[in-house]
Amino acid sequence: MPRRDCGAAGDYRGRRLMLPFARVSIIGLGLIGSSLARAVRAQMPGVTLSGYDADPETRETVRALRLVDDMADTPGAAVIDAELVILCVPVGAMGPVASALRHDLPADALISDVGSSKAAILSALQEALPDHAVIPAHPVAGTERSGPEAGFASLFHNRWCILTPPADADPNKVAQLSAFWEALGANVEQMDAAHHDLVLAVTSHLPHLIAYTIVGTASDLESVTRSEVIKYSAGGFRDFTRIAASDPTMWRDVFLSNKDAVLEMLQRFSEDLTALQRAIRWGDGDALFDLFSRTRAIRRSIIEEGQDDARPDFGRSDH
Amino acid sequence: MPRRDCGAAGDYRGRRLMLPFARVSIIGLGLIGSSLARAVRAQMPGVTLSGYDADPETRETVRALRLVDDMADTPGAAVIDAELVILCVPVGAMGPVASALRHDLPADALISDVGSSKAAILSALQEALPDHAVIPAHPVAGTERSGPEAGFASLFHNRWCILTPPADADPNKVAQLSAFWEALGANVEQMDAAHHDLVLAVTSHLPHLIAYTIVGTASDLESVTRSEVIKYSAGGFRDFTRIAASDPTMWRDVFLSNKDAVLEMLQRFSEDLTALQRAIRWGDGDALFDLFSRTRAIRRSIIEEGQDDARPDFGRSDH
Repeated sequence: MPRRDCGAAGDYRGRRLMLPFARVSIIGLGLIGSSLARAVRAQMPGVTLSGYDADPETRETVRALRLVDDMADTPGAAVIDAELVILCVPVGAMGPVASALRHDLPADALISDVGSSKAAILSALQEALPDHAVIPAHPVAGTERSGPEAGFASLFHNRWCILTPPADADPNKVAQLSAFWEALGANVEQMDAAHHDLVLAVTSHLPHLIAYTIVGTASDLESVTRSEVIKYSAGGFRDFTRIAASDPTMWRDVFLSNKDAVLEMLQRFSEDLTALQRAIRWGDGDALFDLFSRTRAIRRSIIEEGQDDARPDFGRSDH
Repeated sequence: MPRRDCGAAGDYRGRRLMLPFARVSIIGLGLIGSSLARAVRAQMPGVTLSGYDADPETRETVRALRLVDDMADTPGAAVIDAELVILCVPVGAMGPVASALRHDLPADALISDVGSSKAAILSALQEALPDHAVIPAHPVAGTERSGPEAGFASLFHNRWCILTPPADADPNKVAQLSAFWEALGANVEQMDAAHHDLVLAVTSHLPHLIAYTIVGTASDLESVTRSEVIKYSAGGFRDFTRIAASDPTMWRDVFLSNKDAVLEMLQRFSEDLTALQRAIRWGDGDALFDLFSRTRAIRRSIIEEGQDDARPDFGRSDH
């Protein structure tokens, strides 16, 4: 898989190509929304950006940082002349926000989003906006930070962005949205929403669920103090705490909106964990060794495909 | 908790203080053993280092890299005039290696190790070397890499090293071993071996077990291809693959040698995971939100105590 050189976006910076969208509205300016605003500014400076956030403090911060041209005080005012509206709010807020801007949304505007589960969002948006084109999207990128100050323009570089257009989507609009994400440095894929939800259940939702669980387990022990857990966390535990520091509202909504796929993956994980538990109890070293040898190959592939840092310890060991 | 400035070790570099040990033997020159050799060279250049590794190829590499003064071809030859012998081999090899060097070990040599479980090692070493002083140690540090080329001198900087001396240990020898690790930049703690094993079961062994399991689960799905798992791993999964790339032999031995504590922690984790599974199934968003909010605090404490990188995404996002 080739690594993308984001230099291609220079075509938009140099304004030699027609912009996929000239007026883009971003609803929700947290980590992802504010990264999107910064990335559009950096790669497509010809785009006029408007925005809205339900939190007045976030609106003030976005204005102070000048992340968009016009930060509105209502969702309607933010979309009134938009060609593309991207909802960057928690999954559970997608439907309500879409309803709130319905009457101000231009008839030919394309509605998209950045949510982590897609089937629930597709149906919520189609229900709220039955006469508009809806193409959900999911840039598989992020950090454990939240809020408009946590965003950065390169967040989507060489990350995948998955579009889940409905079966009857206009291919031209799909192509336009693909071009938009590619201009931000992302690699674009398409799949149906149900398959997306299954894939992300294993690559993202289950890992978060497990990380939240183990951090909770470790905090609640009586035999080992919380201070000991923190002191000796470099043995592996600290890695899990990063993911378990992710935004609580966002993740609550992900689990509630992708329930079936998450429960299916969780069931498989639990079965596999029970098998390992049994191997430990009966001292079956060969079973342990076999699994532990197999899992190394996946790490190698992830690094070869440019999806993680090749340096040991994510490069955090200072040497 | 203060961050240690390793400048203090300059006292040994300047040879103003008496070295805790003048002749140190390292048995096993993998990631930890070779890091130890490099750290001793850097912080206590007055020490004479000898070494042995069961793998002839490793012995050649260590000689080529000049990591020790004398790389021996038998364990006995490596310890013949040592004051301190540190076993850096997988837990299951500790007893056999100790037996192999028994007849060449000076009567007043101190035996220590760097293994991840302590009660099993303490009894294996005391059984193999009934007439020698044994003080087990565990530097809580490492990366997912293995072998003599993966080591580096700063691996122990600002990491904890836990000593688990038996009840009848000579306090002078304990103080000597503490001074040795402190000279390498580590913070030294003491606890009994059983408590160590419980603490590390939660901060290190359980996280590794879970990471190995989820990487195995993700590789074995039919509904999601391995290529999809790799492509979309930036959603969280890739973090687990780092830990699951750790040395298979080392980790097999850890689980077999710390069975009871690992099974106890695993039982608690499974109960907590079942509770979350139930909350997802029944749509109990409040239970999810409560846990996800609690776990953020632990991350903050780990960063405040200097046990992880404060930068988002471990600093691997390039911005």
